[in-house]
Amino acid sequence: MNGAESLVRTLVAGDVTVSFTNPGTSEMHFVAALDRVDGMRCVLCLQENVATGAADGYYRMTGRPGSTLLHLGPGLANGLANLHNLKRARSGVVNIVGEHATYHRVYDAPLTSDIEGIAGTMSNWVKTSVSATDVAADGAAAITAASQPPGQIATLILPADTAWNLGSGPAPVAAAAAPAKVTEAAVEAAAKAILAGGKPMILLGTDGVREKAAALASRIQQKTGTRILGQTSVARMERGAGRVALDRLPYPVDAALATTKGITHLILVGTQAPVAFFAYPNKPSTLYPPEAEVVTLATPAEDAVDALERLAERLGAAKTEPVLTAPRRTDLPRGALNPDSIATVIGNLIPENAIVVDESVTTGRGFFPHSYGAAPHDWLQLTGGAIGEGLPLAVGAAVACPDRKVVSLQADGSGMYSLQALWTMARERLDVVVCIWANRTYAILKLELANVGAENPGRKAHDMLSLGDPDLDWVSLARGMGVEATRVDTAEAFADVFASAAKRKGPFLIEVLC
Amino acid sequence: MNGAESLVRTLVAGDVTVSFTNPGTSEMHFVAALDRVDGMRCVLCLQENVATGAADGYYRMTGRPGSTLLHLGPGLANGLANLHNLKRARSGVVNIVGEHATYHRVYDAPLTSDIEGIAGTMSNWVKTSVSATDVAADGAAAITAASQPPGQIATLILPADTAWNLGSGPAPVAAAAAPAKVTEAAVEAAAKAILAGGKPMILLGTDGVREKAAALASRIQQKTGTRILGQTSVARMERGAGRVALDRLPYPVDAALATTKGITHLILVGTQAPVAFFAYPNKPSTLYPPEAEVVTLATPAEDAVDALERLAERLGAAKTEPVLTAPRRTDLPRGALNPDSIATVIGNLIPENAIVVDESVTTGRGFFPHSYGAAPHDWLQLTGGAIGEGLPLAVGAAVACPDRKVVSLQADGSGMYSLQALWTMARERLDVVVCIWANRTYAILKLELANVGAENPGRKAHDMLSLGDPDLDWVSLARGMGVEATRVDTAEAFADVFASAAKRKGPFLIEVLC
Repeated sequence: MNGAESLVRTLVAGDVTVSFTNPGTSEMHFVAALDRVDGMRCVLCLQENVATGAADGYYRMTGRPGSTLLHLGPGLANGLANLHNLKRARSGVVNIVGEHATYHRVYDAPLTSDIEGIAGTMSNWVKTSVSATDVAADGAAAITAASQPPGQIATLILPADTAWNLGSGPAPVAAAAAPAKVTEAAVEAAAKAILAGGKPMILLGTDGVREKAAALASRIQQKTGTRILGQTSVARMERGAGRVALDRLPYPVDAALATTKGITHLILVGTQAPVAFFAYPNKPSTLYPPEAEVVTLATPAEDAVDALERLAERLGAAKTEPVLTAPRRTDLPRGALNPDSIATVIGNLIPENAIVVDESVTTGRGFFPHSYGAAPHDWLQLTGGAIGEGLPLAVGAAVACPDRKVVSLQADGSGMYSLQALWTMARERLDVVVCIWANRTYAILKLELANVGAENPGRKAHDMLSLGDPDLDWVSLARGMGVEATRVDTAEAFADVFASAAKRKGPFLIEVLC
Repeated sequence: MNGAESLVRTLVAGDVTVSFTNPGTSEMHFVAALDRVDGMRCVLCLQENVATGAADGYYRMTGRPGSTLLHLGPGLANGLANLHNLKRARSGVVNIVGEHATYHRVYDAPLTSDIEGIAGTMSNWVKTSVSATDVAADGAAAITAASQPPGQIATLILPADTAWNLGSGPAPVAAAAAPAKVTEAAVEAAAKAILAGGKPMILLGTDGVREKAAALASRIQQKTGTRILGQTSVARMERGAGRVALDRLPYPVDAALATTKGITHLILVGTQAPVAFFAYPNKPSTLYPPEAEVVTLATPAEDAVDALERLAERLGAAKTEPVLTAPRRTDLPRGALNPDSIATVIGNLIPENAIVVDESVTTGRGFFPHSYGAAPHDWLQLTGGAIGEGLPLAVGAAVACPDRKVVSLQADGSGMYSLQALWTMARERLDVVVCIWANRTYAILKLELANVGAENPGRKAHDMLSLGDPDLDWVSLARGMGVEATRVDTAEAFADVFASAAKRKGPFLIEVLC
């Protein structure tokens, strides 16, 4: 058994059972080995940022790492931006990156590059295998590294000869550590902050916005009057009817500051102290009062549910009823499509148990209130700010959960960075409804141009922020990749098409002119 | 005048007059400044690899660096693969990469990453500006660095506050050094190798495959019987009727070894000793006889024309007539489309003075012989092997040379990595005919799977190398981005459509089923 097959068998034995692949020559033995090993699903992606973004979506929905297969330094480079997002979502992944045969590297062949250097910018763990007999053990170490809570990026670089030479057979995979429990001192400090008589707020992120943690936070809120809030962009929030209606800290600096105004204690659960996405002249970088005391109850690596359970117990809130949202649907709107009518349609029609992938950027800022009482669903967002992850995330979520409908809410500008994901949806018959918000502009940048105080923007600046001239035609783009699509320009047409797309299986794209 | 405007004025004064941009919030002051400064053409790209690949095409055709405008670490990461290709083409570029305001970086905002680390993997020169008054001088240093022969990658990282604070006004730009002349010893060593009575070969790359250098090499060939050959992938070769019919070293290892078999001296001009793109079991890494003596006449940074002139003089070949190709066109074929009939159509119909951008991969391996006698043209290839540069290169070449027709010969698999370039062609009304070789497979990988000796590939391996199921529909993809397109499935239809597309202005795409 060669090194490649030893590695694939190790991956499968270690419960890494999907490979989002974009292979090249140096990965051919790995590809050939896939046929000899049962249990590894291979998902071909036509650009590497689709593969890495899909791995993020897969981890968010399964809680365990998938793998990617990337071709040398440039292939890894093409996937780096979504590895950045994956890192900020606290997800885990095992990247397998092909490399020239060990003895070939000295010749500086055209595709030679500093793969370890590239990997190092976005990985928690990097190793280059030195021989075929090491590959399986290296792969096992990569799986263990990737599985460390709350999820890590492990990049294994695989020289071609370590794949084709005689390997060791599969290696055993050590179990990853469970998330650490927080200290008693952390619980006590949080309790003290809440009981200090000021205006405390609990800010939730990572697992803190999942159903169980949010319900515990709600108990504490009901018992003590502490406000609870999610971080600005969430990796995976469980929400809808029967769950806590958790709001998020707004993205615009002024709105965020208004939200945290007057708080005296900020208790962090699975998140860091909130900062502005960007600096703006004459605005602060941090999004809470400078005099507020910041207390970390649980870091993203720690067990948020256990921490909140113990805090609730300490506060006498363990048996307090949380406030869960009743089912509620606003009537379907008619007429013009705008962020408000779009949000109403979505809130009304989200399928039961759907996975919503939200890279709506400006269009989606007001989506949340319209879906508090919608059918129960998961809501996944872009956590790292590197736009172009929405469609890949939808691929990964759909691969992870074949029995659930995925609803991709996608701004047009960011969708263009990784539109190749549509082809993978068609190839794999993924059950995804993609809604493209076709405002034909980098709308967020028009706001940001004003926010940063850039003076007198003229035609050239305008042209750099516009996606018009020519208009993108997403119906044609989707058809070009084998995905059925249609275009709507009224709220009633959107509702009709969305409702019928939600009922059928397989990918479908709706271009929503707004 | 703020830092951003000081920088833009420095760029224009330093003859950096085009910016391939994909901006974000942190670059808004730079974008706003573009409106206040005449002389900077802004070309919006919807994904960053389009921007960096376009900068490569621009440099190849003008010999001077353009600039890119990229958004933080992930934006730079998205453009890295084509920076790799640009580096291997020995091109130059000034990358402007936005960064968080200096005081904002400590907060680890979601988009924070190690930009210098990312830049360092693909740059010859990296600097982060520390204040608005330094930005113009830093920009001037970047231009000088990028212009060093044979072209360098200079990456200037621009924290947002260094853009918006009061700057210094434009800074003077120091001239770059001229290419160094080779030593007399190098000329003498090359002459000795040629006169040693063996079988010498001159291998040409970089400027060595341009018209003047190739003609000098041909004089030497005629005088001494020395064989002359271009490197496997050329950045820019001037060819066609009236020029030297220069062949290239083949890509497949066995064919390359057959080509260099028996040579005793290998004289390098603007290139390195040839190595295989990849290692294969039981095949050598180097593509020439191990006993051959390798002599470097000129490195890529040195003046190839001067070196060949002096060598020709030394060998008494200065007045020997070079062999230039007579105009010759094979009759247009009819019937099936295959690499041979495609090459015949292209050779027959290449417009006078066209720029051919060739990322044909397998389909194009036999293209050269059919166009030796075609109308004079430039031929640009993928030099770094990171597929996905063809369409961006065509954008850059068309921006550089608005009066010349660009013909993009594009494999379908590699075209998918950066298809967003089509939109920029439409936006900028670039005069490009794109021919997509739609074989619906990563055909090269099917060959490579056999070459590396991977055994018994099955259905899973096959699926990872196939672009079918569903077939890509390039006509729809092009229309989705505002580019007119049509599909052909016979040689006569291809010739008809190509001839008429060559006569009109503006972008047009032909999907060639083959």
